[in-house]
Amino acid sequence: MRQIEGGINAAKGFQAAGVEAGVKYHNRRDMALVYSTAPCVAAGTFTTNVVKAAPVMWDMEVVDKSSFVQAAVVNTGMANSATGRQGMDCCRREAECAGRLLGIPADAVLIASTGVIGVQLPEDRIMKGIEKLAEAKSEGRDAARDAAMAIMTTDTHPKEIAVEMTIGGKTVTLGGMCKGSGMIHPNMCTMLGFLATDARISKEMLQKALREDIVDTFNMVSVDGDTSTNDTLIIMANGLAGNEEIRDEGEDYAVFCEALRFVNTYLARQMAGDGEGATALVEARVVGAGSKEEARILAKSVICSSLTKAAVFGHDANFGRILCALGYSGVKFDPEKVDLYFQAGQERIHIFGDGSAREYSEEDAARILSQPEVVILADMHMGTGEAVAWGCDLSYDYVKINADYRS
Amino acid sequence: MRQIEGGINAAKGFQAAGVEAGVKYHNRRDMALVYSTAPCVAAGTFTTNVVKAAPVMWDMEVVDKSSFVQAAVVNTGMANSATGRQGMDCCRREAECAGRLLGIPADAVLIASTGVIGVQLPEDRIMKGIEKLAEAKSEGRDAARDAAMAIMTTDTHPKEIAVEMTIGGKTVTLGGMCKGSGMIHPNMCTMLGFLATDARISKEMLQKALREDIVDTFNMVSVDGDTSTNDTLIIMANGLAGNEEIRDEGEDYAVFCEALRFVNTYLARQMAGDGEGATALVEARVVGAGSKEEARILAKSVICSSLTKAAVFGHDANFGRILCALGYSGVKFDPEKVDLYFQAGQERIHIFGDGSAREYSEEDAARILSQPEVVILADMHMGTGEAVAWGCDLSYDYVKINADYRS
Repeated sequence: MRQIEGGINAAKGFQAAGVEAGVKYHNRRDMALVYSTAPCVAAGTFTTNVVKAAPVMWDMEVVDKSSFVQAAVVNTGMANSATGRQGMDCCRREAECAGRLLGIPADAVLIASTGVIGVQLPEDRIMKGIEKLAEAKSEGRDAARDAAMAIMTTDTHPKEIAVEMTIGGKTVTLGGMCKGSGMIHPNMCTMLGFLATDARISKEMLQKALREDIVDTFNMVSVDGDTSTNDTLIIMANGLAGNEEIRDEGEDYAVFCEALRFVNTYLARQMAGDGEGATALVEARVVGAGSKEEARILAKSVICSSLTKAAVFGHDANFGRILCALGYSGVKFDPEKVDLYFQAGQERIHIFGDGSAREYSEEDAARILSQPEVVILADMHMGTGEAVAWGCDLSYDYVKINADYRS
Repeated sequence: MRQIEGGINAAKGFQAAGVEAGVKYHNRRDMALVYSTAPCVAAGTFTTNVVKAAPVMWDMEVVDKSSFVQAAVVNTGMANSATGRQGMDCCRREAECAGRLLGIPADAVLIASTGVIGVQLPEDRIMKGIEKLAEAKSEGRDAARDAAMAIMTTDTHPKEIAVEMTIGGKTVTLGGMCKGSGMIHPNMCTMLGFLATDARISKEMLQKALREDIVDTFNMVSVDGDTSTNDTLIIMANGLAGNEEIRDEGEDYAVFCEALRFVNTYLARQMAGDGEGATALVEARVVGAGSKEEARILAKSVICSSLTKAAVFGHDANFGRILCALGYSGVKFDPEKVDLYFQAGQERIHIFGDGSAREYSEEDAARILSQPEVVILADMHMGTGEAVAWGCDLSYDYVKINADYRS
């Protein structure tokens, strides 16, 4: 497997576009299209929120029931969530419009929206945007980058990646893009993510690969503890790589899963590190837990702690807050046995062990906590369970961004 | 029942003190004493965090095993948490010192600490502080206020209250004080709270009254979602009111519980409204839920949502975030049936219903959200379950306070 250029367009047969539709903001791309020249099998995971946006309900139906999928249309600015029947009708008309322009059935079109909840989409502008997208769609990395730019909201940079692997002698490619960066929390935490591959794989195995992967990737991210109404992660596979179809858990499946893990880990980390107002990516790494599941719970608890996040922002080695967050996670352990470390790059310091603070230099700790990627390592000394979670620090800018997001 | 002056000293036989011991800061009171001239039965509830501070472990033992309790010693500045055996030894020596000076057994002395985790207490200063406290202890409202001031950390004002009730023809008094204001979250959310009453009541009924009350009072508060290692709520009852001992759930018990509810609700609201950096008290009121327990979960979810909190700080009527927080609470409901309102004082506006936004004036909403007490009312239209939770908005100052709390 090797990393390549091209993002969402890297795999054979995929075309993308990102255009200015003026949905809410001006002078920025705000609608995106992912299109495959060949029909795809698709799998998806969606928000666990009881309140599901119209496009989420649409996509769940499409992924579940359509015989194939061939496009995804995305808008930012408004989430088409808490918009009742009018919102659902609008979503259907978007799919019909895109289907007509692309020459595919409406039920082969996925829809995704992100932005303010509770506002009806400006349907005329959305439809004109879809026309622009259909016209602009193109192969190549520039178009992929346009799409990755167009799905951004408070993100500060686009997030895209692609890898190549060999399956049964054929070159298979997987590309992806996603956007954060607020209302992000474990359990389908990505606001919107799209993966496109030319692998030939059965729908069942595609869904299984995605479902099992996100437990350790996207679901281990938290920016602010709020699980959005719109969270969507879609993977489309058009089979154009010509490999023998992956139908079971053999070697080919393992290669595909490894690539999926690499891509999703990259995107999840990018999302965490670009959380609203973030100045640092914080990685909580738990080892020696009683089980994998306990390790996940412990790591997420640290990542979600507002006090820990604020301390990292302040470059303050307040390890007590980390111990505290482990303590209220719900997992039982013996605090006397826990070792805590701060780590950045090659540098690591031992800050807590034997039930109390270790002797360490506050200067060293502050230097580590000033790095753009900070690792908090906890060794629970209970078993062999390990997990990693990703988040970011809590800064003034998080408050600023969210105190008046709508205007 | 009527509200009276005197805080923690209001009930007969109670004396208090608050002194400058220079534990960490200077020129402010930082140690407090609550003392009863007569032996008390005591009950307590403590943090659910697996990591428990030394004084929490000490107090759990005292409340459980001691034949009576007669004093509580409190320090701020350092939490004596994650301090290993040395911390536990220090805690025991504090109780011994106070017991010697007050002429009571060491195991009749409760200890509470709050502040930075992971640092050993400066034992010499603490012991000198206890000497000062023993000397300064006094009846009356000035001494009560000194104690309420001394237990403050990032609180901006002291929190105390007292009420009088009549039980079996006798005047019974209940006073209390508490401090917040960060690391505050459901499940024993008060950092430190002390209640003192002259009621004569059995230990079993006192513990029952406290345990059942906090479910709807202190445990319905969240400032930041972090459950401290030191959370402690203690009630001491010395029986000096001379009422017939409350031993069962009769009328006398009901009167006592009503007073306890009033006092704890007041203190819980005070604590929420004075959360770190808070500019407003936010009350989430859920009605029409499937059950009381579901109502509690829904109300807490709203109060804990960083995005909702930031929107209140920005006076931004972003009701979608409220609906979203209800949606990820874990409670099942039909979003189409939910009605949402903003309310402050006598003014109320209907912001969401029939599955989408209601027509309301953004100006009215912004005016309501600028008030010092904002009510978010959600009618789930599922049943008769009701609950109220209290929190605060999320401001720049929360980040500021917590980015460098230790220095």
